[in-house]
Amino acid sequence: MHRTRARLSDGREIVYYDELPGRVPVPDPRGLPPVEPVCEVRRDPLTGDHVTITAHRNTRTFLPPADQCPLCPGGPASEIPDPSYEVAVFENRFPSFDVRTPPVPPMVDGVERARGNGRCEVVCFTDDHAASMAVLPVSRVRAVVDAWADRTAELSAIPGVRQVFVFENRGVEIGVTLHHPHGQIYAYPFVTPRTERMLAMAAGRDLFGDVLAAERAGSRVVTAGEHWTAYVPAAARWPVEVHLMPHRHVPDLAALDDAERAELAVLYRDLLRRCDALYDDPLPYVAGWHQAPVGEGRDLVRLHLELFSVRRAPGKIKYLAGSESGMAAWINDVAPEAAAARLRDVTAGGAYG
Amino acid sequence: MHRTRARLSDGREIVYYDELPGRVPVPDPRGLPPVEPVCEVRRDPLTGDHVTITAHRNTRTFLPPADQCPLCPGGPASEIPDPSYEVAVFENRFPSFDVRTPPVPPMVDGVERARGNGRCEVVCFTDDHAASMAVLPVSRVRAVVDAWADRTAELSAIPGVRQVFVFENRGVEIGVTLHHPHGQIYAYPFVTPRTERMLAMAAGRDLFGDVLAAERAGSRVVTAGEHWTAYVPAAARWPVEVHLMPHRHVPDLAALDDAERAELAVLYRDLLRRCDALYDDPLPYVAGWHQAPVGEGRDLVRLHLELFSVRRAPGKIKYLAGSESGMAAWINDVAPEAAAARLRDVTAGGAYG
Repeated sequence: MHRTRARLSDGREIVYYDELPGRVPVPDPRGLPPVEPVCEVRRDPLTGDHVTITAHRNTRTFLPPADQCPLCPGGPASEIPDPSYEVAVFENRFPSFDVRTPPVPPMVDGVERARGNGRCEVVCFTDDHAASMAVLPVSRVRAVVDAWADRTAELSAIPGVRQVFVFENRGVEIGVTLHHPHGQIYAYPFVTPRTERMLAMAAGRDLFGDVLAAERAGSRVVTAGEHWTAYVPAAARWPVEVHLMPHRHVPDLAALDDAERAELAVLYRDLLRRCDALYDDPLPYVAGWHQAPVGEGRDLVRLHLELFSVRRAPGKIKYLAGSESGMAAWINDVAPEAAAARLRDVTAGGAYG
Repeated sequence: MHRTRARLSDGREIVYYDELPGRVPVPDPRGLPPVEPVCEVRRDPLTGDHVTITAHRNTRTFLPPADQCPLCPGGPASEIPDPSYEVAVFENRFPSFDVRTPPVPPMVDGVERARGNGRCEVVCFTDDHAASMAVLPVSRVRAVVDAWADRTAELSAIPGVRQVFVFENRGVEIGVTLHHPHGQIYAYPFVTPRTERMLAMAAGRDLFGDVLAAERAGSRVVTAGEHWTAYVPAAARWPVEVHLMPHRHVPDLAALDDAERAELAVLYRDLLRRCDALYDDPLPYVAGWHQAPVGEGRDLVRLHLELFSVRRAPGKIKYLAGSESGMAAWINDVAPEAAAARLRDVTAGGAYG
């Protein structure tokens, strides 16, 4: 794969990933003003969790014309100047974390603070606006996997970054406004609260190996290959939730070998097709790659995908109300065993002929 | 206040709270089949958090006619047989936790399990379908506070209950389908994940006293009285978030004295009115009372309200996407200091003449 770097008109980086060499990036004609992010991380004294305050994002002025997608290639409103691309990655114009964010005092009102150092990127999977990850050829899914791995390695090397999160939000039900197939990457300056919990549970044992072995022996496996197993976890929080875990203990996408990446491209696309076949229309979902922290705790966490959906029935979504959003106590109306059976039994290719 | 107990036709308990004695409950004419809840608690091996599986709730058959509210008094579809009431509390017909739920094996596929022992209640604040907590007279808000306190004491005494959560979900934006003013109570058989975090942070120090002192000295106080202070927390996760904390270290609503309850009724209603005055229409919100665990850790957690909203601008809501729902890493686009200034400056009575 060939990587070509360029800059957008406001100084943000854009990186093209191509099968063949020779891309000569088209300059960004927009003359955008410089990005001036203000991101601050505060540690909640009641829970110890890090919360990020990004007041600049609520006043977003960048609204492309309704008929112009900023992720379609070229054109006056596009974030991607080139007239065509395979996989393109660029720095988010409204980042939650950014290396350019100014310093903050380390303690105010008894609360630890830090500047939101890090980086947020947008990953475009294809220049075809009407496509989706599930309908791309396996070779393109593999190219996306390689791009994710390359971004993970590069963002992990930014001084101060503690964890890199690769994810895709899809569907208006979870607030997605850009329908062009894309995902995001957050490089956090802290270890996320969910991963902190995993680190606490993993201390002194092979937590992920144990969980994988138990799930493979259980009744919730959806599909599996030589290198990966997909299963609905025993304590699933969402009506649709699938984890995809590698059989080898690797910290992140960058550590996957060629055979693992090749199988992942096939299995991941199969999984998305199964999800889309559950109901009459494509499933809204969050697909998040949990990766080990950079530095301390790196050996304790195994790379894995957690994919979930708010859809609990055709036309019905699960809302997070008092118990979930107030107390973090999830109530799931769907038995994980039943969810696994449905995902196992759907014809993965059905929705795609 | 006078408490009157009765049973609905399927055996569920209903409790009326009245200013005057003498209520003679009307029998429930519906002849409902017995409630047969199946609630199972599983401990997520990756995080240690308890997740509750309630497969019986996804097949709810109880759908009242569209023109008949089950919380309006009397009538063939009502859950409250009496023709009028002040405050009425009854066991939820589709509970997430219930003392009647059958046993489960303690360990399956390496995952700890327990039956979802506990109790879920619905609390009706008024028999006036068109009212809301914010427009009720202070005397009725006080009656609701007294009912909450009484329910907390009673549910805490159920063998196996570890924490009682009193809350109100309001607004279609968070999935509320019954518009009649009401809240809920969950009596959990475990300490909720959010409270577990607070217990860890509170070990060996006066966490809540320290936080309250820092917030009272800071710039985010919204309103305060002799016994309570309302503030936007420094590390607020939501675009609108207010905590209301008592000045005295009490574990739960049942422990509040008369003066604290009296002031709470005034301040809580004032706070809701401020929230409703933020935008053109009433604010969708979750208002949750965090109470100390029953038993171990009881002295470490102070009663407080956490009220928050998904609304980040008129007509716009904050969606929980990858970072929040995948990693529990909240990104808040609104500075807590700005949110506090807005809540301080709105005329609380404005929306109500």
